[in-house]
Amino acid sequence: MMRAMGARARQAAGPLSRATAKAKKRALEVSASRVLAEASSILRANALDLAEARGDKLSPAMIDRLMLDQKRIESIAKGLRDVAALPDPVGEVMSEWTRPNGMRIARVRVPLGVVGVIYESRPNVTADAAALCLMAGNPVILRGGSESLHSNRTLYDCLVEGLRDAGLPEAAIQLVPTRDRAAVGEILTMVEFIDVVVPRGGRSLVERVQRESRVPVFAHLEGICHTYIHAAADKDMARKVTMNAKMRRTGVCGATETLLCDRVVAETHLPQILDDLARAGCELRGDTTAQSIDKRVVPASEQDWRTEYLDAILSVRVVDGLDQAIEHINTYGSHHTDCIVTADARAAERFLAEVDSAIVLHNASTQFADGGEFGFGAEIGISTGRLHARGPVGVEQLTTYKYLVRGTGQVRP
Amino acid sequence: MMRAMGARARQAAGPLSRATAKAKKRALEVSASRVLAEASSILRANALDLAEARGDKLSPAMIDRLMLDQKRIESIAKGLRDVAALPDPVGEVMSEWTRPNGMRIARVRVPLGVVGVIYESRPNVTADAAALCLMAGNPVILRGGSESLHSNRTLYDCLVEGLRDAGLPEAAIQLVPTRDRAAVGEILTMVEFIDVVVPRGGRSLVERVQRESRVPVFAHLEGICHTYIHAAADKDMARKVTMNAKMRRTGVCGATETLLCDRVVAETHLPQILDDLARAGCELRGDTTAQSIDKRVVPASEQDWRTEYLDAILSVRVVDGLDQAIEHINTYGSHHTDCIVTADARAAERFLAEVDSAIVLHNASTQFADGGEFGFGAEIGISTGRLHARGPVGVEQLTTYKYLVRGTGQVRP
Repeated sequence: MMRAMGARARQAAGPLSRATAKAKKRALEVSASRVLAEASSILRANALDLAEARGDKLSPAMIDRLMLDQKRIESIAKGLRDVAALPDPVGEVMSEWTRPNGMRIARVRVPLGVVGVIYESRPNVTADAAALCLMAGNPVILRGGSESLHSNRTLYDCLVEGLRDAGLPEAAIQLVPTRDRAAVGEILTMVEFIDVVVPRGGRSLVERVQRESRVPVFAHLEGICHTYIHAAADKDMARKVTMNAKMRRTGVCGATETLLCDRVVAETHLPQILDDLARAGCELRGDTTAQSIDKRVVPASEQDWRTEYLDAILSVRVVDGLDQAIEHINTYGSHHTDCIVTADARAAERFLAEVDSAIVLHNASTQFADGGEFGFGAEIGISTGRLHARGPVGVEQLTTYKYLVRGTGQVRP
Repeated sequence: MMRAMGARARQAAGPLSRATAKAKKRALEVSASRVLAEASSILRANALDLAEARGDKLSPAMIDRLMLDQKRIESIAKGLRDVAALPDPVGEVMSEWTRPNGMRIARVRVPLGVVGVIYESRPNVTADAAALCLMAGNPVILRGGSESLHSNRTLYDCLVEGLRDAGLPEAAIQLVPTRDRAAVGEILTMVEFIDVVVPRGGRSLVERVQRESRVPVFAHLEGICHTYIHAAADKDMARKVTMNAKMRRTGVCGATETLLCDRVVAETHLPQILDDLARAGCELRGDTTAQSIDKRVVPASEQDWRTEYLDAILSVRVVDGLDQAIEHINTYGSHHTDCIVTADARAAERFLAEVDSAIVLHNASTQFADGGEFGFGAEIGISTGRLHARGPVGVEQLTTYKYLVRGTGQVRP
């Protein structure tokens, strides 16, 4: 079955790469309307999933991610419309030049190919991933979590109605219709049908995909993000940015996991910040200086600097200036998202240049690590790899390019 | 030993990413001068390689690729200077925008990371690959063919002198100093030290690398390139372009392997073209129509359409128009480089849009598939993959990017 789905996706790639922006936008608009019109049947399907999840004793966090309500359904429809509003990337001339022999060369954006998306629990990924792939002109095979199969099927029906209405190939979006776990293994080895795999879920899923896949992977491993309070940081800004970076949502990949603070401002800046965090329910683990500043700070181990908590826990280290902060981040971080708070422009520019992460911020919360916040409309994930896609994976990152060479009979000497 | 080399390369990555354009250019200029000054010792080392190669009964083609003379040494020095003349890609602002909350986001080009290059026989790859990687700010580990080790070592010494003179880390360019075959296997699995592997050589090398590598690969598999003579092709241009595309050099990846010709012009255009080719010593294998046009055409099998000859052999098929030509190329080709010869602009634009290859040409020879011919200065190979690098891999394709976000204390709502 999986190979037949792969072959259908491959076959749809040509027609879909030539689909007009108008048709793709129409498909997404119609899908969004169908999602709103079918809200009650989507909620019924979701109730089935939830009942099974409770029977299977899934964790409350899993059940929360799985759960849909009217508000979440509206946000799924809005997501589809947001992607429909993006410019069509396909056909964009990225650069163009003329050679001394008169040949004109253009580098033009084209679809990447067939995308396989393997994800867990959240049913909104079904719509988000399908919309981004469609806009980029890529057929997609969706393999959602088995716990969300009823919800995903109902959402998927809305997507297919959009494709039909716009006259696009139905194989542009396919959902693996079973819970068979072997399907994942097949997706990871169908190199002749699938060009890239995007795993979206917990660390164990991503690691399995990276280990087993023969197809290239856009992987998001983890976000060990830092906020660094530099000697020249404004005290109030440091307080506000740190609180948001850690506590706005603790379970997102852009949440700060380690706070670094320059020794010269530790006595002035840290007490209020650590008090804010502790009062908000954040566990604090720090080095001896941090412990001496706030009695609620427990000792941090070497392992803490390497840990993505995804929870209300923060590790705190006092450093001896910019060099040590950069060294700490490049050594212990995950090259995802890191921030410096400072009023010193030169220090900021050095931090931006020397921290080797996908996203480096000056005076802004690490929680901005998000395709939507970057203006990409939506994202299919955040890549911690260096090749092809780095950082938020939006429509543009789901394309590649080709060279069009226009001559007048040139031959090579 | 390989792991120690990997660790040194990784350590050099930070300093090298911050190297100035001036230092990188100086290193390459000095290396080029050293190559010219050391010509006689390079030729002596090459003579040792050649003597061993003859003793080992390597093929004449291999020995030709291995052989250096004064002219080839000059071309190696020129290659280094050509790369030195390229603009430094590192730090280039690729795009920049401001978010509604006032945050400014810039996408900035940065080095890709540590590159492993695995290649065969040609000693010039030592200099070309090192120069491109250096200019892109990437430490490189070179693993050349064991048959060219003496030549490579002497060239490598010139490169290191350039690094030293410019004050750049010597670990920026490392050459595996032994013939130990296990080194290749180690390069392919050192995921913590190497970010991308570039195999440059015959199909068996590339296939081995693709099969075994745990590190991402920029692979060039094969060039099954087509020249298509459309119904509206100018007869003389078709003749000139086809001859060049097939016979200029038959062993390069951009050489045309299959000629397609519209049925309506087969009688008028093909006789002269096939006669030119046959007289130039090209073996012709064709369908029944091609056979009826020229008696020297022998029957082509299905396998011929899928074969990269890299030799003076051409397969010839007469097609029923543009659709069939595009279908043939997308089915049997290798998505490398394909050309249409036509005076019909609409037919040309459809061909350019619908042929799914890295390079698609209108009225120009497929032999232009080359980084130098594209104006990239040099290339480390031509990628037939779709991710990250497609087509000629030059300095720009050896970079990635990061996002720099400049705020004024923004937090995420």
